[in-house]
Amino acid sequence: MQKLKQRILNDGKVFPGNILKVDSFLNHQVDPSLMSDIADEFYARFSGVKITKVLTIEASGIGIALMTAARFGVPMVFAKKTQTKNIAADVYSTSVISYTHGTTYEVVVSKEFLDESDQVLIIDDFLALGNALLGLVNLVKSAGASVAAIGIVIEKGFQCGGEKIRSLGIPLCSLAIVDSMEDGKIVFREEN
Amino acid sequence: MQKLKQRILNDGKVFPGNILKVDSFLNHQVDPSLMSDIADEFYARFSGVKITKVLTIEASGIGIALMTAARFGVPMVFAKKTQTKNIAADVYSTSVISYTHGTTYEVVVSKEFLDESDQVLIIDDFLALGNALLGLVNLVKSAGASVAAIGIVIEKGFQCGGEKIRSLGIPLCSLAIVDSMEDGKIVFREEN
Repeated sequence: MQKLKQRILNDGKVFPGNILKVDSFLNHQVDPSLMSDIADEFYARFSGVKITKVLTIEASGIGIALMTAARFGVPMVFAKKTQTKNIAADVYSTSVISYTHGTTYEVVVSKEFLDESDQVLIIDDFLALGNALLGLVNLVKSAGASVAAIGIVIEKGFQCGGEKIRSLGIPLCSLAIVDSMEDGKIVFREEN
Repeated sequence: MQKLKQRILNDGKVFPGNILKVDSFLNHQVDPSLMSDIADEFYARFSGVKITKVLTIEASGIGIALMTAARFGVPMVFAKKTQTKNIAADVYSTSVISYTHGTTYEVVVSKEFLDESDQVLIIDDFLALGNALLGLVNLVKSAGASVAAIGIVIEKGFQCGGEKIRSLGIPLCSLAIVDSMEDGKIVFREEN
């Protein structure tokens, strides 16, 4: 998505340790006009896919997921993060390792809001190692539902998350794939 | 807002301890069509007010805040919750007491995204005791910015948050004010 890539080049900041900061328009301050264009793009790319629900994880994916769900005319569900090990019986849950914070957390979704009739579009803002995303895939499977597709705004193509997901045979569409950020220079993967 | 009140009556669930669960359409599963109507309503109610930014707190206010920001054509910023006491120099921060969880957490916003020129519309899904909301008001003041108005989806009118905020002289608009939930019967405050 050309407009997104241009915005990353203009306003993204690269820090040592392969950190890409896009918090001026994506995940702290958020540009509603760009998010609306991103929702349109997901709708166009998954137009042939049957979707009954959009699923994301709190917090920064919620805005994009809601706008995307509006395009498809289906509910959006956001999975919640919790530290507690006492998981209630009325939720699906899975553990996710956070390498950033060196911790493990639980991700939960109420059983009321996912069932075996659901064709789920998973949306998130970032894909790097893919642990949170695999957690969402596990939640969908626990419900007996199907992952229809996954839409990601920015994928770090030099980390293994994208490969893990694609090897599962799930259609994964990332609107911008960053293949390298050496010396602060952002290089995007060519689109087919 | 009649449509919202009707939805609360249809799908809201009252539990002992004055708990109102609206997680089938507002804060776990989210109905994009209703959220879009809510954003329209906030835009109509604050149409005469100069707004340069919409501010909310993660996580459940983010979707509504983004759609509302889209109506005004301004950026949305969401404040982040953190447990850490080591607050970076480049953020505004304030402490918030959570009675629900019996804990205190810090709420932060990057100094990059709020300054003295900002006229801020604060948006959140719920108002009960008002601690999180007062935290957001503090952040805006720390930046030297002004709170132009506050928009709330559901206010628990029998708790003190609304009164606290109104006594500060800040224009506060709640789209549905629940005045009582005795015996599971939801009673709304009459609108002027």
